Amino acid sequence: MAIIVQKFGGSSVATPERIMRVARRVVETKEAGNQVIVIVSAMGDSTDDLIALAKAITDKPQAREMDMLLATGEIVSISLLAMAIDKLGHGVVSLTGSQGGILTEEVHGKAKIMEVNPERIHAELDNGNIVIVAGFQGVTEAGEITTLGRGGSDTTAVAIAAAMQADVCEIFTDVDGIYTTDPRIVPKARKLSTITYDEMLELASLGAQVLHPRSVELGKEYGVPIHVRSSFNHNPGTLVQEVSDEMGKEQMEKELMVSGVAYDMNVAKIGLFDVPDKPGVAMIIFKALAEARVNVDMIIQSAMRDNRNDIAFTVVQDDLETAVKVVEDVQKQIGGGAVAFEDNVAKVSIVGAGMISRPGVAAKMFEVLANESINIQMIATSEIKVSCVVMATDAKRAVVAIHEAFGLEAGEAANNEGFAS
Amino acid sequence: MAIIVQKFGGSSVATPERIMRVARRVVETKEAGNQVIVIVSAMGDSTDDLIALAKAITDKPQAREMDMLLATGEIVSISLLAMAIDKLGHGVVSLTGSQGGILTEEVHGKAKIMEVNPERIHAELDNGNIVIVAGFQGVTEAGEITTLGRGGSDTTAVAIAAAMQADVCEIFTDVDGIYTTDPRIVPKARKLSTITYDEMLELASLGAQVLHPRSVELGKEYGVPIHVRSSFNHNPGTLVQEVSDEMGKEQMEKELMVSGVAYDMNVAKIGLFDVPDKPGVAMIIFKALAEARVNVDMIIQSAMRDNRNDIAFTVVQDDLETAVKVVEDVQKQIGGGAVAFEDNVAKVSIVGAGMISRPGVAAKMFEVLANESINIQMIATSEIKVSCVVMATDAKRAVVAIHEAFGLEAGEAANNEGFAS
Repeated sequence: MAIIVQKFGGSSVATPERIMRVARRVVETKEAGNQVIVIVSAMGDSTDDLIALAKAITDKPQAREMDMLLATGEIVSISLLAMAIDKLGHGVVSLTGSQGGILTEEVHGKAKIMEVNPERIHAELDNGNIVIVAGFQGVTEAGEITTLGRGGSDTTAVAIAAAMQADVCEIFTDVDGIYTTDPRIVPKARKLSTITYDEMLELASLGAQVLHPRSVELGKEYGVPIHVRSSFNHNPGTLVQEVSDEMGKEQMEKELMVSGVAYDMNVAKIGLFDVPDKPGVAMIIFKALAEARVNVDMIIQSAMRDNRNDIAFTVVQDDLETAVKVVEDVQKQIGGGAVAFEDNVAKVSIVGAGMISRPGVAAKMFEVLANESINIQMIATSEIKVSCVVMATDAKRAVVAIHEAFGLEAGEAANNEGFAS
Repeated sequence: MAIIVQKFGGSSVATPERIMRVARRVVETKEAGNQVIVIVSAMGDSTDDLIALAKAITDKPQAREMDMLLATGEIVSISLLAMAIDKLGHGVVSLTGSQGGILTEEVHGKAKIMEVNPERIHAELDNGNIVIVAGFQGVTEAGEITTLGRGGSDTTAVAIAAAMQADVCEIFTDVDGIYTTDPRIVPKARKLSTITYDEMLELASLGAQVLHPRSVELGKEYGVPIHVRSSFNHNPGTLVQEVSDEMGKEQMEKELMVSGVAYDMNVAKIGLFDVPDKPGVAMIIFKALAEARVNVDMIIQSAMRDNRNDIAFTVVQDDLETAVKVVEDVQKQIGGGAVAFEDNVAKVSIVGAGMISRPGVAAKMFEVLANESINIQMIATSEIKVSCVVMATDAKRAVVAIHEAFGLEAGEAANNEGFAS
């Protein structure tokens, strides 16, 4: 008998009617002969309502008490879903994070899962029950209630799937799966049938909102196949899984070199000129930024000239003001030059495990942008990703052109080829 | 340092503003040099809202899942109150029933507390923290969440006060304390400064809504002084406590023979005529009623006549129809006579530990009713209570007359004397 983990987000359980619909979907899976574990988030906006209550009392709620408060949202969902499944005539039990054995570190608001103790879940499945576990929450060894922060319920689902050695972890969303790019920009964007963990990680951190990077990392670490699919239909979605060496060689040739095109409009660029070329200078700059809690994304250091470097980096636009102040101070301190910044920029990226073995992918992307007369301001690459910073006004045109050039449209033959380097 | 337990009900924490007010009251008690443990109920109507959500899904929610759902209400309250107390600059920690060591039997919806494990509470108090514990909920040995049913938060408060050997358990309500009778009927009703557990028990089961009988029983068993007082002012309320033998003799002479007059309009009377006078007949009647889940209050069997008895009893009005059907069947089965019923009746009672040692109290009550030309339909007595069933239309007049006759008005000398038998 297969073990299937199913995760439903807050909008899927926003009302009693929607909870009944989720119950029917869960029961269907059970009746198909599987053991089913369900993870749910809090109903609709209920977490926001709880936060509003806390804010009505204090601007600075203690993190421990905030966790105590927010954890109730998922407990409401699990008990209601259990009632709905019981009504459909199936044995069911709901478990809090604590009862479900979700052991976390002793950090509030963004705890990491240390361990899943699956004894209770196993026992309930063996009794023929459908098991519902509250997402987003756990418990410390000392019995304190914690929450997992952003992407928490996805992470709970994948962690339980790993601990239970589940056959698949299904993440139900309001989209059909992972697309080659944003269908709002490219209507012919194609749904991917499979994607590797690394590709999904890059896409997720580049702004694809469907799966949180934490859950993908966990899935990769434990080899949990993650099926991202729609809660509105029964179409197969996108399967996130490792491509084994054997499979890989065979599949890779059928698969696209580039799996997707991502873009991020929330980018600001900062340039530091004439930074002294001495050991420790980069450390001084980026440590100061970290202390000011600025998250730095891309970093580029240009070739040295007269013992001076130019350094550029990107941040999210909200952090721009803080970041500029920090680096102006640092430049004075280390005897550097001027600081420039720009917030009308965007980042366009291509992601694909296929590009590892194919040279010239980056060059092809640059050629496409050149043909469109789009100027590239910064470039960063990883093994499976190439990102370019361009003018914000050029971003969507860049996505459309790249998506077409790599043959990602629905219905197109997957014939994109490496650009000979 | 004194240990004080304070319990605030749902209306006291219905809004963020009211939660801030409760926080100030708690902090006051702490700043007066006490260790403070606070028990709170769910905010305002939030429990009803949760029940409505469950009802929107199913008519028959499983008791276990209902407990899981309802327990969230108190967890919201404790975390918000902790934030409010923290804002006022005091160390504070909120604890769920489970974290607070409230161990219950394995029954859902109306679990009884088996044990309070006070280790965590002690540790937090020793750290200088104010401790907030969720009312109405507990946990079984197996880790299942339970709720305590009606009067649950009062019971939590008294149980914790007992386990912590607290100096007093303060129950905050929207009234000033326990009155000699309902002030809406007798505006001159007097607030009692003290009352015994037994008196409070009788008053509570006679309809005084302030304290649930369960909490009073628990208080009596463990000798916890319970202070019923207003959350709107600092007036002393009514102290529920045992009168020790030493204190008793001294106090009893100062105290009233009758402490209060209670009434209950939700009464229906059923009469069974010509019931065969054989062993086991009463058992047959009242077992049948119990099996039909009818709660019987007063039972009276008249003197035997020709080997036949008349039996009368009272029930709440909602149970009248069911009860009549049951006893009509039973009368046929055992060869009894007719069944009569009446729902326009009420029960008027006097309660007082003082009547144990003073003869004639009941007779005085009957005299007062006779002087008012109020006919008594049934009488039941206990050591500290006399109840009379009268016509519903006579009930309020009876309360006023009895209250006056026993000298219970505010400002009156407490000079009521036993009626010589």
